[in-house]
Amino acid sequence: MNMQLRPDGSLRHLITLEHLSRALIERLLDRAQSFVRPLGAPAPVSRALAGCTVANLFTEPSTRTRVSFELAAKRLGADVVNLEVQLSSRIKGESMLDTVFTLQSLHIDALVIRDAEPGVPGTVASHVAPSVSVLSAGEAHIAHPTQGLLDALTVRQHKPRFESLRIAIVGDIRHSRVARSAVHIFRTLGTADLRLVAPPGLMPAPEEFPGCSRHTTLEEGLREADVVMMLRIQSERMAQADLPDAAHYYESYGLTSARLALARPDAIVMHPQPMNRGVEIASEVADGPQSVIRDQVRNGVAVRMAVLDEVLAWRRAG
Amino acid sequence: MNMQLRPDGSLRHLITLEHLSRALIERLLDRAQSFVRPLGAPAPVSRALAGCTVANLFTEPSTRTRVSFELAAKRLGADVVNLEVQLSSRIKGESMLDTVFTLQSLHIDALVIRDAEPGVPGTVASHVAPSVSVLSAGEAHIAHPTQGLLDALTVRQHKPRFESLRIAIVGDIRHSRVARSAVHIFRTLGTADLRLVAPPGLMPAPEEFPGCSRHTTLEEGLREADVVMMLRIQSERMAQADLPDAAHYYESYGLTSARLALARPDAIVMHPQPMNRGVEIASEVADGPQSVIRDQVRNGVAVRMAVLDEVLAWRRAG
Amino acid sequence: MNMQLRPDGSLRHLITLEHLSRALIERLLDRAQSFVRPLGAPAPVSRALAGCTVANLFTEPSTRTRVSFELAAKRLGADVVNLEVQLSSRIKGESMLDTVFTLQSLHIDALVIRDAEPGVPGTVASHVAPSVSVLSAGEAHIAHPTQGLLDALTVRQHKPRFESLRIAIVGDIRHSRVARSAVHIFRTLGTADLRLVAPPGLMPAPEEFPGCSRHTTLEEGLREADVVMMLRIQSERMAQADLPDAAHYYESYGLTSARLALARPDAIVMHPQPMNRGVEIASEVADGPQSVIRDQVRNGVAVRMAVLDEVLAWRRAG
Repeated sequence: MNMQLRPDGSLRHLITLEHLSRALIERLLDRAQSFVRPLGAPAPVSRALAGCTVANLFTEPSTRTRVSFELAAKRLGADVVNLEVQLSSRIKGESMLDTVFTLQSLHIDALVIRDAEPGVPGTVASHVAPSVSVLSAGEAHIAHPTQGLLDALTVRQHKPRFESLRIAIVGDIRHSRVARSAVHIFRTLGTADLRLVAPPGLMPAPEEFPGCSRHTTLEEGLREADVVMMLRIQSERMAQADLPDAAHYYESYGLTSARLALARPDAIVMHPQPMNRGVEIASEVADGPQSVIRDQVRNGVAVRMAVLDEVLAWRRAG
Repeated sequence: MNMQLRPDGSLRHLITLEHLSRALIERLLDRAQSFVRPLGAPAPVSRALAGCTVANLFTEPSTRTRVSFELAAKRLGADVVNLEVQLSSRIKGESMLDTVFTLQSLHIDALVIRDAEPGVPGTVASHVAPSVSVLSAGEAHIAHPTQGLLDALTVRQHKPRFESLRIAIVGDIRHSRVARSAVHIFRTLGTADLRLVAPPGLMPAPEEFPGCSRHTTLEEGLREADVVMMLRIQSERMAQADLPDAAHYYESYGLTSARLALARPDAIVMHPQPMNRGVEIASEVADGPQSVIRDQVRNGVAVRMAVLDEVLAWRRAG
Repeated sequence: MNMQLRPDGSLRHLITLEHLSRALIERLLDRAQSFVRPLGAPAPVSRALAGCTVANLFTEPSTRTRVSFELAAKRLGADVVNLEVQLSSRIKGESMLDTVFTLQSLHIDALVIRDAEPGVPGTVASHVAPSVSVLSAGEAHIAHPTQGLLDALTVRQHKPRFESLRIAIVGDIRHSRVARSAVHIFRTLGTADLRLVAPPGLMPAPEEFPGCSRHTTLEEGLREADVVMMLRIQSERMAQADLPDAAHYYESYGLTSARLALARPDAIVMHPQPMNRGVEIASEVADGPQSVIRDQVRNGVAVRMAVLDEVLAWRRAG
């Protein structure tokens, strides 16, 4: 999607990580790293985006991603407004685009959009004025680009040589925007050994995820892995996985210490949260020494600061 | 309502535009114009109201008017708190005034109130401490003064000589606070030819809107008009209009290009939004060259900045 | 609860007023007093907590306590995020602590928690990183420490010699966190004559509130009182009080002018709000010359500023 870039190659929108260059992604990760602080240290703050306005358009207000974007914007000095709105429901009646044009006329510089319908952020991005940026905060099962960036940043903090990594993504791959964005970014960063581990019913369609190996047992997928990314399983998907309940899911696909021992001893364990402890992951693993799950959250704000800083940098110059 | 003014003639509350002097209204419009920026330019920002606090009291949080007031306050440096509260429901139990006195004791300087019951902003204004201003953000069918100001500012940007204008207001006049505030301000600014265009069932009572001509066909009302203000029609009002559905409404009262051609060639088309495209207005008109609908949104923030700046100016001086 | 204090004796968490030293409480009250301004004066503002982030975790967003904490934080320059979340409901599924660890990883410095389940603020406080403070904004029927502080500050503004005071607390003592925190703080400040006035069914268990006298008639409890603290009665509690409805409650326990005359002539009347006028208190008393109810609201922001300033002071030094 070249529409994501400005003529000078800088990022204007962030809808998907697909087709973004390695150079651009590494620039974003570098910038994000500069915003990372250890737990307990003061948050990084600046006035770089003073005078800018960011609108969060979420269908529900209390998500961690909304708070993460809100803090990222505020810590760069931007004003933030939160709107609880389902853009896709506005295709009829008040049109989605009228809502967007209204926000644009309010001199809002960046629209952060989460929507359960595919295509919403891209449609908005293709209609807004040149001064407006659109950032996806999660689009159906399609993409969650800032999650992909934070996942890559978290991996890089521990294992900076992406080319040699073995990364296993485990769970409901079929419905996961997290898995899709992860594969996009790890591929771009040079990782060849990408493994999808899922029950057959939750494996994506054959034409999707080209070049990834597929494994229906956790034991097989984890072998010698450097990175284990667990996904959240919705209870309503278990039937589709031919696993009648959480206990059966855990028995087959739950990440326990014993199973984690199949991966490399220095493997890291990730999860996008919220976790179902005792379903897709054992508490002993989630809270264990190989878990970097809380780092992911911290890196999430840093990544969102980097993205906002990138897409709104032209304002600062102007 | 003299209670809207301070002894020195400055604005303290804004409940209605009725009885405000032309000089005061023009001062507000001039100030608002100074906050207008072209689409794509940075929003105007200042610290004029730093240390002030504005509370938005809306019955539902995600309206464009709430966001417009919130941004207006923030861009002047004020703190903003949003409360989802229906003051009129508090007449029993916890009384409305206790809620207001609480906010006042929290050193809130301006209360922005939207309520579906008539009389709420005025009742609050007549009870608050001298240091508190009350701004109506829409009162039942009675008044929507900042909408009136933004409508006047939008007209003035295109047609500054109000005396010679022919302004047609079209739709559900009977239930429209937008129409009432528009007539108040255009009258004060000198417009004599004000036309109400509505189905008989949505025409206001005979004693209301004195001096406005009344037209039950769109064709008659639009003739040689300089300004066409379309109103939103609620589907539940169509029966009252003897029009069984949206298609029938559109057939009789929808603004199409063909009908717009009856107005002056340089006529402007306005709408307070949200629009029902294909009901009260054709998309070709809403998005056409004569539409100034998006300018209205932009002017809305500017007008709200001007009003906040006016009512809180004494704080700055103090 | 020694866990509330840092090794240097400064306050880190505020979960309960019980066991806090008189010196610490007086320091908080002194600091709060420095943030008190008369009605109509500008709110006190500073940048002392610039760069800090405060999260409000409330089960419902539009409470006066949430707004009071939000304004307290903003007026000290902190960033604020509001989350509508019921932590106690997260004991299953997504665990409460994962939510808290997420917020902590977002570099949030203070969590303000209101929850209807006992134990939530304390549990959170015992798990967060050393850099995070937890402030209770109301915990079940257990404690409401900032309410206790604002009540004590309000009393002190009128009657600074706590030792000689006679304080009557009237109403649904059994279920009241306000009463519990009030007794904790007045006891610490030296008040010996503390009277609980309630219908037998709303009197607390015998082992609770040691040292307080108990009175089942208002007339007896009010005699020569210096301070009368009325509590809100929930209509669903009236059956428990053997009073079938609001009218009967008012007849037996409503504070009227006639009854207030039994107290000392300079007695002050308090209420945590929201008030049921005509149920637990007559309007003539609520709005009368002895009422300090609105002062309580104003003092609430001041107290919350003092507490935030105290628990986050180490950030400023750092």
